[in-house]
Amino acid sequence: MINDDAQTRPLFNKIALIGVGLIGGSFALSLKKARAVEHVVGLDRHSTSLKAALQLGIIDSFTDDMASAIADADLIVIATPVAQTTKILSSIYPYLQSNTIVTDVGSTKADVVLAARTSLQEKVSQFIPAHPIAGREKNGPEAAIDDLYVGKKVVITLLAENADQSIELVAQAWRLCGAIIHHLSPKEHDQVFASVSHLPHLLAYALVDDIAAKPHADRLFQYAASGFRDFTRIAGSSPEMWRDISLANRTAILEELDSYSAKLQQLRASLEASDSVALEAIYSRAQTARVNWITAIEAAESQNKDGGD
Amino acid sequence: MINDDAQTRPLFNKIALIGVGLIGGSFALSLKKARAVEHVVGLDRHSTSLKAALQLGIIDSFTDDMASAIADADLIVIATPVAQTTKILSSIYPYLQSNTIVTDVGSTKADVVLAARTSLQEKVSQFIPAHPIAGREKNGPEAAIDDLYVGKKVVITLLAENADQSIELVAQAWRLCGAIIHHLSPKEHDQVFASVSHLPHLLAYALVDDIAAKPHADRLFQYAASGFRDFTRIAGSSPEMWRDISLANRTAILEELDSYSAKLQQLRASLEASDSVALEAIYSRAQTARVNWITAIEAAESQNKDGGD
Repeated sequence: MINDDAQTRPLFNKIALIGVGLIGGSFALSLKKARAVEHVVGLDRHSTSLKAALQLGIIDSFTDDMASAIADADLIVIATPVAQTTKILSSIYPYLQSNTIVTDVGSTKADVVLAARTSLQEKVSQFIPAHPIAGREKNGPEAAIDDLYVGKKVVITLLAENADQSIELVAQAWRLCGAIIHHLSPKEHDQVFASVSHLPHLLAYALVDDIAAKPHADRLFQYAASGFRDFTRIAGSSPEMWRDISLANRTAILEELDSYSAKLQQLRASLEASDSVALEAIYSRAQTARVNWITAIEAAESQNKDGGD
Repeated sequence: MINDDAQTRPLFNKIALIGVGLIGGSFALSLKKARAVEHVVGLDRHSTSLKAALQLGIIDSFTDDMASAIADADLIVIATPVAQTTKILSSIYPYLQSNTIVTDVGSTKADVVLAARTSLQEKVSQFIPAHPIAGREKNGPEAAIDDLYVGKKVVITLLAENADQSIELVAQAWRLCGAIIHHLSPKEHDQVFASVSHLPHLLAYALVDDIAAKPHADRLFQYAASGFRDFTRIAGSSPEMWRDISLANRTAILEELDSYSAKLQQLRASLEASDSVALEAIYSRAQTARVNWITAIEAAESQNKDGGD
């Protein structure tokens, strides 16, 4: 499955890409740029997306026939909202050959692993769960770009059943996209992203919906500026995708939301009491942590860029 | 005070700039770029800031003597954290001549107007309260830039006592910086900005402080990505400045915080009940409102740019 003669033959003869939007489309474009794939066949609920993906060079053909799409594929990539994973894995199962690897790009992992165990049964060792930590405000094949993953993390949440060479194939594909491989357990993964990704999305959606529901919303939006723009950027994300993520990672998100709400009530109490010392202490701790974080991130990014040149 | 011969003589002979950081420094640099001021004298609590501002060409001289600084000034600009406004206005009062206009850049206005009435007494008509809606993540004179206000809004919250020519002088200064003048009452102003600026700052500070306090904070920050970066950008803002804003606009912020907390609890209930329809409804309304807002903002910005060329 892995070509030794990498100079002349691509890593993959055929990839079946299920979901040809931003994340899946950018994966395909990145691998094509790296000359790592011969043929990408697309499957998608939306025929308009398939036609757009074909025109944009994301895929080389499309079909609605799962059997033929995956028959001779080296790799199947599931890049749909996470709630569809079970159904898709079940439709893959009867046709899945032993030399084909299946992977996904879902933002939650415990539910995906459970779906894989249920749907793929004795073939579950062929499934490598992965999550690229990258995104854009825009969605769909038109938003796909060939450098979305450069310098970005991809978290692989291995199963005990996975063979080393299957893991390495998926890791190699992501490295060819410019990404850096990390490993977490599915539970660790879901807790981490509930905190630093899923909760912020909920908070941003809640703020925009709260403002939009006010009678004087037009005036409020008129004076919203760059701080508001950045704070609410993630509220421009796909509602369906985030509905699915919220439900799939419900327990961890509820826990983070309750921790956050307690912090917010503490801040409220300080404000109500006009406790300037307590207020400034919260703001100062946050500012320091934020500055330290951005400094570390920028140092790491510049190191990755240097390494990639 | 306003020169008719604008081609050869600048709008201002002398401006006294109290607070030479990002906001005041950018105002001075913008007016200098427009050749609208002959001499800027700086006053600041921090002598290092004054020296930096002098070196950066923000100010032409500095002093710690209020009397001499404002004696022959056309305009006095207060660009400090808002809690200092009362003290500064009181120190201005004894030396304030009838042909000098005073303005400020504070993010809250009801408290500033109250401070002006108390401190400036019969001279309050000379005070034009203003708030430029612009900022950066960085603070201090080093962060000041000469195009910070291009295409940005400046809200003037007039007093009944203000003379038309005083208002026009301040408006003209801001227009020379590239800004667009808006008018609101102090109360309207404070309610609007509690909603679209002050509350988001509190929410971002609370999230970063909540995460930083967790035992596994390092791992969490390690996986925080671009969504988190944008959401928390405003948590990099000055703790002192935001402590002052929080306290100055306490009542309006508490009201917005309670409205937001109710929305968040509604979202929490939907998530706990795994109510996918309710969740998607919140996310969809927010996404639609956010997309409509950004479309309108971008259209307005491109119009302003076209108009300025």
